[in-house]
Amino acid sequence: MKSWVAQVRKGVVELIVLAALAEGEAYGYQLLQRINRTETLSMTESTVYPLLARLTREGYLQVRASPSPSGPPRRYYRMTRLGRSRLREMTDHWRDVTGAVNKLLAGGQP
Amino acid sequence: MKSWVAQVRKGVVELIVLAALAEGEAYGYQLLQRINRTETLSMTESTVYPLLARLTREGYLQVRASPSPSGPPRRYYRMTRLGRSRLREMTDHWRDVTGAVNKLLAGGQP
Repeated sequence: MKSWVAQVRKGVVELIVLAALAEGEAYGYQLLQRINRTETLSMTESTVYPLLARLTREGYLQVRASPSPSGPPRRYYRMTRLGRSRLREMTDHWRDVTGAVNKLLAGGQP
Repeated sequence: MKSWVAQVRKGVVELIVLAALAEGEAYGYQLLQRINRTETLSMTESTVYPLLARLTREGYLQVRASPSPSGPPRRYYRMTRLGRSRLREMTDHWRDVTGAVNKLLAGGQP
């Protein structure tokens, strides 16, 4: 069971991060809170931070630094136009795949 | 896009094969037809056959050989009680994950 779960999670991590950023810009920890409040989709900093860096490198996110009340400046991420278009594309595919699996699941339980 | 798709598919392949077998016993090619009629979830023999072998080894499926009108005997697979319980478990998890992702997707598009 565990490895199947791990595989599904790995695939949807990017969709989840983009979906969470669609609510508006956020710094890393804020984004984690948005994701983790779903309970099912808990993620850690070690997953999210490298992904934010990659998505920024690929042009899907923009980052700006802003002073923090304590400690070093916070890095706020927000989606670019390209990021929104990628999220739409991934969402469409997500609906196709989940719809097809649900149809198959329904077929086995008449 | 491609690699994300590949990852999601990899994770759900086992759920899909079990769901397709829940309709009743099938030989490999029959099972492929059930899966491929969804269109979105196309699979090939090279994915399904090794998976059927593994699921049988793990006790989730039973196999019986039956004469074929042409060629070698057909190997019919069907789910064991253990397989049904695994399918239920995976279906529950699938609903949790997809529900949480859909909630997140809805949140970004008020």
